[in-house]
Amino acid sequence: MIIQKEIILPAFPRGFHLITGLVMAQMPPLPEAGLLHLFIRHTSAGICINENADPTVLIDFETVFNRMVPEGQPYYRHTIEGSDDMPAHIKSVLAGAEVTIPVTSGKLSLGTWQGIYLCEFRNHGGQRRLTATLIS
Amino acid sequence: MIIQKEIILPAFPRGFHLITGLVMAQMPPLPEAGLLHLFIRHTSAGICINENADPTVLIDFETVFNRMVPEGQPYYRHTIEGSDDMPAHIKSVLAGAEVTIPVTSGKLSLGTWQGIYLCEFRNHGGQRRLTATLIS
Amino acid sequence: MIIQKEIILPAFPRGFHLITGLVMAQMPPLPEAGLLHLFIRHTSAGICINENADPTVLIDFETVFNRMVPEGQPYYRHTIEGSDDMPAHIKSVLAGAEVTIPVTSGKLSLGTWQGIYLCEFRNHGGQRRLTATLIS
Repeated sequence: MIIQKEIILPAFPRGFHLITGLVMAQMPPLPEAGLLHLFIRHTSAGICINENADPTVLIDFETVFNRMVPEGQPYYRHTIEGSDDMPAHIKSVLAGAEVTIPVTSGKLSLGTWQGIYLCEFRNHGGQRRLTATLIS
Repeated sequence: MIIQKEIILPAFPRGFHLITGLVMAQMPPLPEAGLLHLFIRHTSAGICINENADPTVLIDFETVFNRMVPEGQPYYRHTIEGSDDMPAHIKSVLAGAEVTIPVTSGKLSLGTWQGIYLCEFRNHGGQRRLTATLIS
Repeated sequence: MIIQKEIILPAFPRGFHLITGLVMAQMPPLPEAGLLHLFIRHTSAGICINENADPTVLIDFETVFNRMVPEGQPYYRHTIEGSDDMPAHIKSVLAGAEVTIPVTSGKLSLGTWQGIYLCEFRNHGGQRRLTATLIS
């Protein structure tokens, strides 16, 4: 069985944000066994899974991604949408645009320390749309 | 229902290439709701999703990936297949070897600006084989 | 049909390790057509697909990931779990926490040179748990 749902996330500031609760609040009851696929329909934001406890982890992600893909370098050619745009495209590929999470006994089968991240790579990204697909 | 199909991509030059049209031309009609999984059966190329409009984005991806994983460094030990080979393996992991895309109302549920990229990391990669799996 | 199974991997030393055989030894017979989803329930290790033949490839992955996300930098704020911890979180996002592999004719449809990697990014990561989900 396939259930699909569009999820609209409110605008977040640039950075990494835990959205597990926000996403699950918009989902129907989960099946006994299956997979939840979340797909972000944008090219300058990402979605991935990592540590859900210490807020400094989120800050360090932002710091390190900015160092890995620095802005304002002379070699960029796609610059018309602002200095944060092309780095955002590359960071989006590095973090990924989708996650697939096992569903077991009606719950996400995440590890104790895992949560879902929205990675907002634009300075003013605005609302972001996800497509959620449940397979069971 | 599961439908599987092998897709053979023609040889592309090194770089990032939009292949949405090429892939979809080889797919059967898409279901009302489901997922399309695309998997590249190689370790020195990747497949990912990003911006489908401005060709300079593709050029900047190539530039930045080359800077993130530079060739010809003294610390590489796997060098027998050429200086582009080991960096290609690492770039393949960074970009990813697979994408899963929601299918809604008989179409890929991509965002307006999203397209499927083949990331050819070898100088002479030749044809590349994908396995497409449709779940509905 | 959905089949789910928890797989426990023994402790591996820090680095990249081929685990295709270990994983498949714990799986039931594979279906004629489907997908195998493997998900690692940790935030400081990863799972990805790459070259299965030359052991120096695994060494080069470790070298390059350490250079891309160096330890002990003054900009890290999440340092209480050791200098290898925060870099491990970031590497886990870069490598990914999951793979989905096509299953065809009762076998993983991997390319000739592809294998499944456990990416152990901690110095002492201990056992790692995977959730395997088979869809057919």
